[in-house]
Amino acid sequence: MFLHFKQTIQPVDVSSPDPQFGQMLLEQFGGATGELTAALQYWVQSFHVEDASIRDMLQDIAIEEFSHLEMVGKLIAQHTSKLDQTKVYESPLFKVKGMGPHFLDSQGSAWTAAYINEGGNVVRDLRANIAAEAGARQTYEALIKHCQDEGTKKTLTHLLTREITHTQMFMNALNAMGKLTDPMFGTIAPDDTVNIVYNLSQGEDYRGPWNEGNLHYVSDPRPEGGMPPEPINPDDEKLHKMAAE
Amino acid sequence: MFLHFKQTIQPVDVSSPDPQFGQMLLEQFGGATGELTAALQYWVQSFHVEDASIRDMLQDIAIEEFSHLEMVGKLIAQHTSKLDQTKVYESPLFKVKGMGPHFLDSQGSAWTAAYINEGGNVVRDLRANIAAEAGARQTYEALIKHCQDEGTKKTLTHLLTREITHTQMFMNALNAMGKLTDPMFGTIAPDDTVNIVYNLSQGEDYRGPWNEGNLHYVSDPRPEGGMPPEPINPDDEKLHKMAAE
Amino acid sequence: MFLHFKQTIQPVDVSSPDPQFGQMLLEQFGGATGELTAALQYWVQSFHVEDASIRDMLQDIAIEEFSHLEMVGKLIAQHTSKLDQTKVYESPLFKVKGMGPHFLDSQGSAWTAAYINEGGNVVRDLRANIAAEAGARQTYEALIKHCQDEGTKKTLTHLLTREITHTQMFMNALNAMGKLTDPMFGTIAPDDTVNIVYNLSQGEDYRGPWNEGNLHYVSDPRPEGGMPPEPINPDDEKLHKMAAE
Amino acid sequence: MFLHFKQTIQPVDVSSPDPQFGQMLLEQFGGATGELTAALQYWVQSFHVEDASIRDMLQDIAIEEFSHLEMVGKLIAQHTSKLDQTKVYESPLFKVKGMGPHFLDSQGSAWTAAYINEGGNVVRDLRANIAAEAGARQTYEALIKHCQDEGTKKTLTHLLTREITHTQMFMNALNAMGKLTDPMFGTIAPDDTVNIVYNLSQGEDYRGPWNEGNLHYVSDPRPEGGMPPEPINPDDEKLHKMAAE
Amino acid sequence: MFLHFKQTIQPVDVSSPDPQFGQMLLEQFGGATGELTAALQYWVQSFHVEDASIRDMLQDIAIEEFSHLEMVGKLIAQHTSKLDQTKVYESPLFKVKGMGPHFLDSQGSAWTAAYINEGGNVVRDLRANIAAEAGARQTYEALIKHCQDEGTKKTLTHLLTREITHTQMFMNALNAMGKLTDPMFGTIAPDDTVNIVYNLSQGEDYRGPWNEGNLHYVSDPRPEGGMPPEPINPDDEKLHKMAAE
Amino acid sequence: MFLHFKQTIQPVDVSSPDPQFGQMLLEQFGGATGELTAALQYWVQSFHVEDASIRDMLQDIAIEEFSHLEMVGKLIAQHTSKLDQTKVYESPLFKVKGMGPHFLDSQGSAWTAAYINEGGNVVRDLRANIAAEAGARQTYEALIKHCQDEGTKKTLTHLLTREITHTQMFMNALNAMGKLTDPMFGTIAPDDTVNIVYNLSQGEDYRGPWNEGNLHYVSDPRPEGGMPPEPINPDDEKLHKMAAE
Repeated sequence: MFLHFKQTIQPVDVSSPDPQFGQMLLEQFGGATGELTAALQYWVQSFHVEDASIRDMLQDIAIEEFSHLEMVGKLIAQHTSKLDQTKVYESPLFKVKGMGPHFLDSQGSAWTAAYINEGGNVVRDLRANIAAEAGARQTYEALIKHCQDEGTKKTLTHLLTREITHTQMFMNALNAMGKLTDPMFGTIAPDDTVNIVYNLSQGEDYRGPWNEGNLHYVSDPRPEGGMPPEPINPDDEKLHKMAAE
Repeated sequence: MFLHFKQTIQPVDVSSPDPQFGQMLLEQFGGATGELTAALQYWVQSFHVEDASIRDMLQDIAIEEFSHLEMVGKLIAQHTSKLDQTKVYESPLFKVKGMGPHFLDSQGSAWTAAYINEGGNVVRDLRANIAAEAGARQTYEALIKHCQDEGTKKTLTHLLTREITHTQMFMNALNAMGKLTDPMFGTIAPDDTVNIVYNLSQGEDYRGPWNEGNLHYVSDPRPEGGMPPEPINPDDEKLHKMAAE
Repeated sequence: MFLHFKQTIQPVDVSSPDPQFGQMLLEQFGGATGELTAALQYWVQSFHVEDASIRDMLQDIAIEEFSHLEMVGKLIAQHTSKLDQTKVYESPLFKVKGMGPHFLDSQGSAWTAAYINEGGNVVRDLRANIAAEAGARQTYEALIKHCQDEGTKKTLTHLLTREITHTQMFMNALNAMGKLTDPMFGTIAPDDTVNIVYNLSQGEDYRGPWNEGNLHYVSDPRPEGGMPPEPINPDDEKLHKMAAE
Repeated sequence: MFLHFKQTIQPVDVSSPDPQFGQMLLEQFGGATGELTAALQYWVQSFHVEDASIRDMLQDIAIEEFSHLEMVGKLIAQHTSKLDQTKVYESPLFKVKGMGPHFLDSQGSAWTAAYINEGGNVVRDLRANIAAEAGARQTYEALIKHCQDEGTKKTLTHLLTREITHTQMFMNALNAMGKLTDPMFGTIAPDDTVNIVYNLSQGEDYRGPWNEGNLHYVSDPRPEGGMPPEPINPDDEKLHKMAAE
Repeated sequence: MFLHFKQTIQPVDVSSPDPQFGQMLLEQFGGATGELTAALQYWVQSFHVEDASIRDMLQDIAIEEFSHLEMVGKLIAQHTSKLDQTKVYESPLFKVKGMGPHFLDSQGSAWTAAYINEGGNVVRDLRANIAAEAGARQTYEALIKHCQDEGTKKTLTHLLTREITHTQMFMNALNAMGKLTDPMFGTIAPDDTVNIVYNLSQGEDYRGPWNEGNLHYVSDPRPEGGMPPEPINPDDEKLHKMAAE
Repeated sequence: MFLHFKQTIQPVDVSSPDPQFGQMLLEQFGGATGELTAALQYWVQSFHVEDASIRDMLQDIAIEEFSHLEMVGKLIAQHTSKLDQTKVYESPLFKVKGMGPHFLDSQGSAWTAAYINEGGNVVRDLRANIAAEAGARQTYEALIKHCQDEGTKKTLTHLLTREITHTQMFMNALNAMGKLTDPMFGTIAPDDTVNIVYNLSQGEDYRGPWNEGNLHYVSDPRPEGGMPPEPINPDDEKLHKMAAE
């Protein structure tokens, strides 16, 4: 069961409303790297994760992300409240669609669950979460760099901070499973190509830890699969038949 | 510049065509965790990654993923070639849309670039890639478990194997940057809440490495943000005005 | 700030798991008429509604819808837990994507914020909410009619019930504004066509309260706008120029 | 069968073309609240509504909405015809995609049938239509407020007027069924929670007609559903197993 | 202005209702190759095509496509009317979403304006239309092959026929412009690579009219663009900096 | 198997970076008419086309389109590298999402496989390809007209040129099948309406090659289908029942 307090989890206080910056903030409300993606991703994972302690962690963080979504929404509301009608072409999004947040990104694209990455296995889920946090942190950094309002900047820095905390938590959980630095998981044994690296993009090639050591580097890979069987498409027009006509 | 050899990078050989399994395979051709997502994600990252050696790695792996996309497509082509017309309701997707692969997932949803996770910073990108590989590996495991055809199973096991290899490469690259086990990156310093964990989902709470140690656990968090200012919406109908009428 | 209790708001107890019915239930988890749509729609409205009492109502109901979303998710989790591997083609969605709920509808389409209807004015918002409740209720009725499991049916009937309650609340709020039975709102005065009804679909025409009374019925409407100016497209190929060549 | 007259149903006459305003007008051509949504929604409902007189009303209004879609399209065509090439960055949408209307909204997002709300029951459909009209009216008000061209303003006011007329017609039809002010419809009886209201968003709570009267207000609701069964996910990695290794 | 007659343009008469076939028919109601795509594509083109006679043709055919959309919808309505409740898992789409047509394709994906291909130039538009007709014809052939009902088959054959007629009309219009067999249009002169063909997919290469004659065949193409400048990404983590730490 | 050379197929050299123009270029990277659409469309067709020589052509051109996608991406990378931070509101897309290309169009909408047109029959596929090339050429012309940078203009002219070459190749292939100027293909015989043209959009009607000659022009078409059977919807509320209550 969800419960809500009208007070926000951390302060939200905008001094200089700026609808154009409000539109950029939509990226973290209704965008790919935003708080809705994080909240729903971690929460939906909790329905299929079997381990009760990991599930508890996912739910704790998901609820915090809902509370962060609220903070971003309140920022946008303050940046668009009493929207000045005179500069309509600078931010028509709010003029046409109404003030306050919408589940759109900064370019006006509707949020889609295609942004969510989850399913089947807790290791997969936790790795997806580290990626989600990295995306969110990156967008917050971009927003902070272009932010002129101190109150907004303080709130965004808090939100960026918490992405780091969550990353730490997900890393700790993966580490407890031995899966933070081990690429393998699941029950299917790999075949004998697991240590081969193919140099398929050629020119100014580099070597590094990712194609050295116990990884065997194939500098000029060739196709090993032969010619696949040709399709037989009974609906296709035939060139030779056509030519014969 | 791209170049293509008509021979596949590894063999693709289906003995018992099965259009319903072919439809499931679409998940790795035009689905969220599929090879198109991986190929385009790594490749588009290469356009903004500044370090030439990491860029080389991203391009090498991207090109391999294009070659894997081709293998999955050839599997689907063989599972649907000479499609038996008598069992139309068991797999209407190929009957209506034509045999062979399409850029749809196993449920018939069109592939969307919303699946791609990239932008701004190489650490963010590499973490996104580890997540992408984990999703792909998970789907391959699901497909292998339900696969009746030995040739298909062998191909899918190879593809699963390579996801592990790529994960290893991405982990090695992150490790070389010191970012495999360190949650922080970028240039914005976190605020002083970075070590706090909030127990926002209550009941049957658990402790573990992710909310212990140097992380301070707040067992009953309260809102610290106060009441945010109320919106002023000049377009809104007023209840009191209405009531007065 | 959001808070969560791991106990559900009402009981969820499935006796006879059925993955195919679980897939149908996705319609109310990640589908157009589902609880996510309701929760996010009412909640996002609360950011721009100026009247504090209406805002409180929207938030109360939104939080209940999040709690209902959780109930639907728990139903799906129970219908897919320990998923029988032998009948894969009857419900490949969960086999390929993993057990438990996903933010997809019953046909596997990802949830999109395009389902949300809100913005600008509280009357518009409340009318949108009555429509959202009607859609949700309709889908619950369809699900209940095809449900074989008594525990599931009891939960679905509760969820259907609450849609009626919410409809009552939204109707009462609109009524308090005088807007439940009055079509007008906003500040723009209509022009003098406001009482005209056009019979634009002809054949077996009917009269009723919606085209009688003070509404003037035009039985054979004609275009009153004249020919609009033709476009001038400098990029277009010219037929006459082409013909002259 | 459809028939078309090249004259518009009402005049469309733009004096001062403005491509940026033309882009805002796209919201009512290819946007969520636009005429395409209305036309297709009412018309598709007519295929499953059993009552012939309601069906006639839906078809009459749908055809008018197609005629309105044409008027909006003609407005956009006139605002973009002979598009001045010198101010390209002010409205690149038409420069890149061509002059005239497109089935995109004002932010460039493609129209999607996810905007449509219909199915199963005529009461649900009519409520959805009142919501659709409210959204359309709201967007027309926003456009009129930012419109500098008198001819455009006159056309938009007519279109806003007709949304009010249609709302009246839908309200009258619902009223004839007794469903304008009665929240219930359909054949499933609600359970005994139908008159309960939960105060799930706490702080600065308000009472009003929507949580008073015969509605029982629960000021501090608690979860009544107990702990749901935990999922059993055979594909999940096990934390304890991992820790033991 | 649009006008509608309740009689259909051609007969629609289903003898043996089959909801599963009804679902397949959705491909031509709300699918990529369906009548809605054709109707809206040709009609939206008419808003920017300058030549009045071509515009008249586009409008004539668009209105016929709307009338065909109605026929497909009536087919679906008849295939799902009085839907048998006992075989719910065979076609849950209509059970969950309601009987009759919806703007979804046969896989349940919502129609999107991304299917539409138009803009800027009449030659581009007419070529797009020939492609649209070819897709529609192909889907009708697929549906006819799997159709068991004679009345449905007769209607589908008429619809397929009309796609051929429209193709003829579009070809005649292009031919009158000299653009049916001439690849060039528009005002930008091509550079000197216009007659070169690159053999970029190697192995079992074929020659034919498309890479012979006045086309110069390059059998082993090499990159001619050199190394592009490397990106400079100020936000990127630096590998060497990391290694030094 | 795919192979990649880091040198581009043709030069890419931007002298005057302009992020706003870079955003317009996205139309050809992640937009409907862009190189990704072309590359994936031709390539996916190659999986079901039976004729080996046509398949070879499709693969050759697809690989060239991938190489063109790379060129467009490199253009965008150069237009956004070292992005000036001072003019953030002029191009927030790259500021928020990061420099370099993304799989978005010029309006920020994610690429979708709904743009792809293919399936079932090689004639359908080749006609779709001529349409795809026409759309790409049209967008390149629009971009060149608004381009200030000579290096960019030279690259775009090359890309436009190659669309003409590919159109020639597809036309030649269709011509070899006798399908460039013949509207018919496939195995279903049309009915006897194949030579009828309906004047369904009335007013200022024109005659031309597309409704003359052996095409029979019906100047005032009437519905020939009669009234279709009314739906029977067991879930619908009944108006008469309601009225009686």
